[in-house]
Amino acid sequence: MIPESLRALLSELERLPGVGPRTAERLAFHVLKAPPEQALALADAIRAVKERVRPCNVCAMVTETPVCAICSDPARDRGLVCVVETPQDLYAIERLGIYRGTYHVLMGAVALLEGVELTDLQVQPLLERVRRGEVREVVLATNPNLEGETTALHLIDVLEPLGVSVSRIARGLSAGSTIEHASRATLEDAFAGRRKVTS
Amino acid sequence: MIPESLRALLSELERLPGVGPRTAERLAFHVLKAPPEQALALADAIRAVKERVRPCNVCAMVTETPVCAICSDPARDRGLVCVVETPQDLYAIERLGIYRGTYHVLMGAVALLEGVELTDLQVQPLLERVRRGEVREVVLATNPNLEGETTALHLIDVLEPLGVSVSRIARGLSAGSTIEHASRATLEDAFAGRRKVTS
Repeated sequence: MIPESLRALLSELERLPGVGPRTAERLAFHVLKAPPEQALALADAIRAVKERVRPCNVCAMVTETPVCAICSDPARDRGLVCVVETPQDLYAIERLGIYRGTYHVLMGAVALLEGVELTDLQVQPLLERVRRGEVREVVLATNPNLEGETTALHLIDVLEPLGVSVSRIARGLSAGSTIEHASRATLEDAFAGRRKVTS
Repeated sequence: MIPESLRALLSELERLPGVGPRTAERLAFHVLKAPPEQALALADAIRAVKERVRPCNVCAMVTETPVCAICSDPARDRGLVCVVETPQDLYAIERLGIYRGTYHVLMGAVALLEGVELTDLQVQPLLERVRRGEVREVVLATNPNLEGETTALHLIDVLEPLGVSVSRIARGLSAGSTIEHASRATLEDAFAGRRKVTS
């Protein structure tokens, strides 16, 4: 009863993250009703991304050029490398305009239960940059959750023998949050990370 | 900073219904990380649907053949035509297996505030079927909301002069619902549609 090509589209849409049968149906019928130019523009955009986007040769960020815009920018501090899990994390930091170093994008995080180890991530290009003596400090900006912390610990293991300075972004109470509503883990971080305010 | 092809994909994804910037980002990065075969299968499925799916010459249902499977089925009663707004409504009725007539799919509903009139829907093929004398009864199964009721009223106006019997599916309390929690409109429908149980 459902045309074969429509059935095929429904099953491809259901493979997308967060898309169940109802959402797939809504999207498929939108594609059916949309002007052909719009539907084909989406098909072409998917194809173009797969053909053109590749990892930056230096930092593994998504880019259409051999070296990404940030790594090619002479104003960025190449001696300071912020390690993030995903391109989205890099965008979040860049949006703030508070960081003038460069990045390294792991394209994932260590997840031992799912069988993802450090060697499955983009780690070799980072180690090569450090070995070439270009890097003064590596700032580990992986997420403050199980996967991110595990990734940070594994990275410390491989970076420390190379003699580079390694730091981890701070954990504690979020600005604007309240102690009353903070979780146990956040309060523990806040106490453990306390700093002396008088000499 | 965001590669041009990725930016283009994000903006095409954001045109889909129910897809905001965050969802578009999640879908785009899924496409980026997915095996090329999977991403290209989605692009090809979109293209195939636009190329192959067309309205049935008889009932306007989506199909890949000139006449859809239901209209081609000799076991279906061609004298009884159920009018629905969308292919999804037809699927919902067919799934139950309780209806052995044929259908007509309007591909929308009258929405005067949005400028959608009866002439913008697939109405002409229905009128032609009726004029050819093939149809004994038209069952209006448009939704019990403003658009569906308006559509039903406008259809009655154009069908009545043709001398065909026109009916409307019943409104009232849903099976399994409770009077205590029924809305005013539902209770009004239930009283207005009451039937005599003794002679």
